[in-house]
Amino acid sequence: MEIREYIKQNLPRIIDEWASLIRIPSISAEADHHDDMIRCANRWCELLKAAGADRAEAMPSDGNPIVYGEKLIDPKLPTILVYSHYDVMPVAPLELWKSDPFEPSVRDGRLYARGADDDKGQAMIQVKAFEYINRMNELRCNVKFIFEGEEEIGSPSLESFCKKHKDLLKCDTILVSDTSMIGKDTPSLTTGLRGLAYWEIEVTGPNRDLHSGHFGGAVMNPINALCKILSQVVDDHGRITIPGFYDKVLPVPEAEREMIRQIPFNLGNYKKAIDVDDVAGEEGYSTLERNSCRPSFDICGIWGGHTGEGSKTVLPSKAYAKVSCRLVANQDHHEISEAFAKYIPTLAPKGVRVKVTPMHGGQGYVCPIDWAPYRAAEQGFTEGFGKKPLAARRGGSIPIISTFEQVLGVKTVLMGFGLESNAIHSPNENMDLEVFENGIVSVVGFYHHI
Amino acid sequence: MEIREYIKQNLPRIIDEWASLIRIPSISAEADHHDDMIRCANRWCELLKAAGADRAEAMPSDGNPIVYGEKLIDPKLPTILVYSHYDVMPVAPLELWKSDPFEPSVRDGRLYARGADDDKGQAMIQVKAFEYINRMNELRCNVKFIFEGEEEIGSPSLESFCKKHKDLLKCDTILVSDTSMIGKDTPSLTTGLRGLAYWEIEVTGPNRDLHSGHFGGAVMNPINALCKILSQVVDDHGRITIPGFYDKVLPVPEAEREMIRQIPFNLGNYKKAIDVDDVAGEEGYSTLERNSCRPSFDICGIWGGHTGEGSKTVLPSKAYAKVSCRLVANQDHHEISEAFAKYIPTLAPKGVRVKVTPMHGGQGYVCPIDWAPYRAAEQGFTEGFGKKPLAARRGGSIPIISTFEQVLGVKTVLMGFGLESNAIHSPNENMDLEVFENGIVSVVGFYHHI
Repeated sequence: MEIREYIKQNLPRIIDEWASLIRIPSISAEADHHDDMIRCANRWCELLKAAGADRAEAMPSDGNPIVYGEKLIDPKLPTILVYSHYDVMPVAPLELWKSDPFEPSVRDGRLYARGADDDKGQAMIQVKAFEYINRMNELRCNVKFIFEGEEEIGSPSLESFCKKHKDLLKCDTILVSDTSMIGKDTPSLTTGLRGLAYWEIEVTGPNRDLHSGHFGGAVMNPINALCKILSQVVDDHGRITIPGFYDKVLPVPEAEREMIRQIPFNLGNYKKAIDVDDVAGEEGYSTLERNSCRPSFDICGIWGGHTGEGSKTVLPSKAYAKVSCRLVANQDHHEISEAFAKYIPTLAPKGVRVKVTPMHGGQGYVCPIDWAPYRAAEQGFTEGFGKKPLAARRGGSIPIISTFEQVLGVKTVLMGFGLESNAIHSPNENMDLEVFENGIVSVVGFYHHI
Repeated sequence: MEIREYIKQNLPRIIDEWASLIRIPSISAEADHHDDMIRCANRWCELLKAAGADRAEAMPSDGNPIVYGEKLIDPKLPTILVYSHYDVMPVAPLELWKSDPFEPSVRDGRLYARGADDDKGQAMIQVKAFEYINRMNELRCNVKFIFEGEEEIGSPSLESFCKKHKDLLKCDTILVSDTSMIGKDTPSLTTGLRGLAYWEIEVTGPNRDLHSGHFGGAVMNPINALCKILSQVVDDHGRITIPGFYDKVLPVPEAEREMIRQIPFNLGNYKKAIDVDDVAGEEGYSTLERNSCRPSFDICGIWGGHTGEGSKTVLPSKAYAKVSCRLVANQDHHEISEAFAKYIPTLAPKGVRVKVTPMHGGQGYVCPIDWAPYRAAEQGFTEGFGKKPLAARRGGSIPIISTFEQVLGVKTVLMGFGLESNAIHSPNENMDLEVFENGIVSVVGFYHHI
């Protein structure tokens, strides 16, 4: 049976299986979802076995269990290791969701739910392509699966798991569907990822909240101080001011800048889609360069003082921020993390104490486009989407890609099927069902051509 | 019976009455305490009548009811109007309270509770002095009471109430206990108050939370923008940069600066009490000048993005701050409020929209120290605390003082009995019970000398 016919006949069942995963709120960042992590891992084991894996189990790690599955047909044939994650991001602010984030809702050809794309949806694409290849008896390689439960909190247990189970995870190619394409009509394969460093900053002023009338103007306010500090991390040219920050950044080659200029991109539509009057960023770079080849600094969260109803006048004791840098290939996240932790306190005005806590980080990654598995993926995409995919660096971070490279010594092909409009990490995350189908066709093509 | 003996005999009852007020969580800033406001107003009516008022009722206003009470003995005698407020501040962060904020706890000679000082405790001082004078048949003036329920949210209904009931509130002197003294051993009367202007700022970037990997560096982050904006409001010399901000500020007269220098003040102890390494503020002014005679800018609250557990990477859609300026006599809060609302958007980087919403405000105030009622208060304090009180400008704001001056045409004497260590507006608010007693003696003295 042809793959599109297979999908057509099996779609209700596939969506049921997908929904069974979505209904488990496997939020790794929130401790009270511990049991959901285990339920979600076990559900994946069932689905992997149903799809044809000979073995699938939730294995213990230092943190949430890691799902391992395999179908080994011949030790002489190449082995593909499919990576995904079964954890999802928190869902706040809940009031902005048009439907329950943990109850899939299909509207206008899209399935809405937390994890619809990232990464339960993309993992379903992988598993359903594997199922088809299996049932058609077309499998010509060994396949292993590793689905972790801590990707959204920086994969703290994955590296030690890989080191411990190096033989089990032995493979020739890693295949990951956790990235996005340039557009529905512009399929692309991700050839570069940004690295990440993440910190929490705590600024302490007085030992208790003070009355701003009695103390205001005479005692440094820690929120005023925090704003002063954070305002200095990016200068007026959009450059990050951490000493040594750009030392290891390789300039973007002119050839690559030329390729980026060829990517269909309409700045007007881009601004309209996110409803901003203007874009902003590092001087001398285009939007597509800024969000893929150049590093960035974002305050991901800030809080302090009176944040409730009404107009309480207070000079608070503490102020906090969670901040992150996206890094580019060749920047070392450990070095950047240290440089930042040293730098931030030097920006503080007198009268406050500053504590910088590194949270997590990951290295950037570049994939060679003349590598055979990359070529197989390119052919798969051409079959799935009807046109040759572009090679593109993307701005997100999957720190584990460089972990795999370092620990297992294997490179990764990033066959990602997300779209910007899928709103991952945001309210109303969704997956375009046409892309979902084309994605399965693409991965089937990958198996045919590898 | 001598007043100290009277207090000794009646203290258990007085504390019971005080506790009955504290147990009503009359938080005006939180809408779900609406019924508590009414209960607290009614409880005050009972207590005023029990203390000797001929009439006491909770009168309707545009907002929470306003308690009015009176004892009129002779229209030819002068009339004192005692102002207080029965509303209290919110109690967050609750985990920092050592005992329930709404259940009084006496420890080491202090009574701990929200409102122990501000202003249920200070109002009890007034009412118990009135009770004594009454029971001893020593009242030689008419007394009126007005206790409002919206002081902590800027008294939005008081001005129209005063205008509507101008005849009812007719008086010669307004007496207010809602300020603090320099120290337990350094009694002082407040002769100046700062004004206030308060705003909420909303910065909007993209129309939804974005993935900081896919958009970071290319789209202005509204928290980054908010920090950039707020960091520019105070310059490196501690001067506020709002155009025209200092135009109407009168220089502090050298004579007053000299008097301020004579106030016992130990900077080391001050820093130690609030546990800061250094003080900060406007260059060229001392700490006591900065917190009383000079304006200030404080960020009272800030929030945006991911403020929960874990390390979510997000480029949020919105960021918010609540900010306030303390103003000094002669600055007009309406003018400052407008100037600020015009200025803030000019500081915004491109790619965000800024909305400034004025919340509330009040004018500053200065009390003449050669005024007879001021002198009576001075004598009362001398009897209560055993030494002549200093005249001092204070940094807080009681916007209604200038409202009274404008609407009723009457000046106010500020007989305040707070201490810095009373931690008003903070966790573990408290009242020193020795000061509480001395306070009652002082107000009794005021009645004797007026």
